[in-house]
Amino acid sequence: MIYLDNNATTKIDERVLEEMLPYLKEDYANPSSMYDFAKKPAAAIREARVKVRDFLGAANEKDIYFTSCGSESANTAIKGVLNCNREKRHIITTKVEHPAVLNTYKEFEKNGYEVDYIGVNSQGELDIEELKSKLRKDTALVSVMYANNETGVIYPVEEIAEYIKSKSPDTRFFVDAVQAAGKIPINVKETKIDLLGISGHKFHAPKGIGALYVKPDVRFTPLINGGHQERGMRAGTENVPYIAAIGKAAELAQEALSYELKEVTRLRDKLEEGILKNVFNARLNTGVKNRVPNTSNIGFEYVEGELILLHLSDLGICASSGSACTSGSLEPSHVLRAMGVPFTALHGSIRFSLSRFTKESDIDFVIEKMPDIMKKLTSISPFQEELEVLRKRRG
Amino acid sequence: MIYLDNNATTKIDERVLEEMLPYLKEDYANPSSMYDFAKKPAAAIREARVKVRDFLGAANEKDIYFTSCGSESANTAIKGVLNCNREKRHIITTKVEHPAVLNTYKEFEKNGYEVDYIGVNSQGELDIEELKSKLRKDTALVSVMYANNETGVIYPVEEIAEYIKSKSPDTRFFVDAVQAAGKIPINVKETKIDLLGISGHKFHAPKGIGALYVKPDVRFTPLINGGHQERGMRAGTENVPYIAAIGKAAELAQEALSYELKEVTRLRDKLEEGILKNVFNARLNTGVKNRVPNTSNIGFEYVEGELILLHLSDLGICASSGSACTSGSLEPSHVLRAMGVPFTALHGSIRFSLSRFTKESDIDFVIEKMPDIMKKLTSISPFQEELEVLRKRRG
Repeated sequence: MIYLDNNATTKIDERVLEEMLPYLKEDYANPSSMYDFAKKPAAAIREARVKVRDFLGAANEKDIYFTSCGSESANTAIKGVLNCNREKRHIITTKVEHPAVLNTYKEFEKNGYEVDYIGVNSQGELDIEELKSKLRKDTALVSVMYANNETGVIYPVEEIAEYIKSKSPDTRFFVDAVQAAGKIPINVKETKIDLLGISGHKFHAPKGIGALYVKPDVRFTPLINGGHQERGMRAGTENVPYIAAIGKAAELAQEALSYELKEVTRLRDKLEEGILKNVFNARLNTGVKNRVPNTSNIGFEYVEGELILLHLSDLGICASSGSACTSGSLEPSHVLRAMGVPFTALHGSIRFSLSRFTKESDIDFVIEKMPDIMKKLTSISPFQEELEVLRKRRG
Repeated sequence: MIYLDNNATTKIDERVLEEMLPYLKEDYANPSSMYDFAKKPAAAIREARVKVRDFLGAANEKDIYFTSCGSESANTAIKGVLNCNREKRHIITTKVEHPAVLNTYKEFEKNGYEVDYIGVNSQGELDIEELKSKLRKDTALVSVMYANNETGVIYPVEEIAEYIKSKSPDTRFFVDAVQAAGKIPINVKETKIDLLGISGHKFHAPKGIGALYVKPDVRFTPLINGGHQERGMRAGTENVPYIAAIGKAAELAQEALSYELKEVTRLRDKLEEGILKNVFNARLNTGVKNRVPNTSNIGFEYVEGELILLHLSDLGICASSGSACTSGSLEPSHVLRAMGVPFTALHGSIRFSLSRFTKESDIDFVIEKMPDIMKKLTSISPFQEELEVLRKRRG
């Protein structure tokens, strides 16, 4: 099997599994308990918090809160901050956020909030000037993702943070860094970002664990009320095995970052060049340099994305037509639509997302097989005349 | 080690660990993905949902939503239902609920809701007549736990459900069944309960997984907005390993229920009798028959609970002085205070909670060691005169 859907989820690193197994077996105590048996799990949480602090470049491990997933991190940040600033009722975000962010703002919109959704250009880059022009004194929250899950395009969140704080210091800035963590360096203490969310299963920890960084002076309310866990900001008995796991995964991702930036980028670029060279109806949906290393989004004109995925799956290749969180919906990607990807390529767009476990032979295999798949699918496409024009122009 | 703190958390059953390992290893696909590789994890979720349905006696597996813990289940139920019935602003609950419930209602109280907290008698039994008298047409929600985490006392939630629906059909009824699930039979379809929450780690699944049953006609809003997971009612990539785990744990708990009811009860009763017989300053904080089989709460008069726990811990015995979720607080248990446990025993009350893994020799050891511990602790107690009176009266 060739797994090129690492933006949907990743394989758990064996060293991460190793780290968490004791807490699934003998060291099962509730870390809040008083007896000696609880000391090891309690220590595991403390150590993991330090590792995640270092991974995100936070000043203090107390600024890290563990959650059950990236969606919980985003919901905690957004609802928690807006609950503490009820007099301000304006929000700025982008058209290309993850559903965990977009759908949360839609709820606030229903309840009378005004939300500005900032657009992107054809390369998926954010319209910073538009964002700046929308900032108001009554803007409670701005939220911009660090990197887009479908295109990999990185957004200038540090510059945006500076701008917000210079113009409207009380406005809070949340960054959904789920697709950036482990792919590019993050160093929150060098920035003016207020809150930043990550998800473990995007960097080789299990599904079901996330973290939220909150700057110390930022007030928020808990999403889950109850016990004293996470300094009273997230109730529920701590998921010790997965907390240990996200700590280890953070440490390993940090170590692998230079490999990610160099080798994963090289393999991704090789994949793109190989496909574009050999498949006449392929187009890069975005080719900007400022992308996370692992992500490629390629449009195959006049063919149906679901059919491509089926043929890839038959060859044991896993890729996707968009976010797994929007799968099941027949709507084409809201990200590609915001970019104005032409209709002819919109329905045939495929996201390939690599990881540090991707092998050169995986990439070679996809490059080798893609032309055959496209030959078959273009032959049954109802757009034969258009394909002929394209073949002549590009081929 | 002798683990008698199963109401705080439980050891993961080896068969549960076995069940989840494939999803921590090779079968790591995102269950929402389209390719064949995602079929096994997607099937695991479907199967687990059926198992939890059967465990709770729900009519349909669609009525089961997976969450990240019991606290999330409670928060989802309470906030989700109240969000859908904003014109009704009265709530009824009990003084002895878990902090995940109590602290959530405290938030609503701050925001203008009126909350009635129903008391219990000296045996920890709920004052049903008081509860009935508080029910109003504008009561949005009643919530009563199935069994108390500190005393094990079972509340007549079926009778309460009947009463509510006969008097005020639009009032919703939430049952926190975290300490009942796996200890006594639950059969929601035979009741008029609207919502019921459970937590996996209380019945030998890992910490970090819960479930919420919601009757089909009950409207609620998601606590975590975002993707389409859990039919749009709980966003976040599914924690497949732990979902498989709670399914398996539910199946095993169901199978072990008759053992639990008979053997665990026998061991618990043996522990109580042994301690009461041999320790003159011990008193049962409640001895009612209608308790879950595994829980015993014993007050040791004129000694300090933390000291007892320390001495137990030195002997490798794990027990607790209250809920792990309130540990760290110096306040004595809100449950025992509501029962009016006398001051002399309040600070020296210990909860022993057994499981199907508790051995007869564990119980014998505790019975054997407790008199020595008490001899030492009573000798350093500042209440020597009172202890002498007690010794003469009981011994």
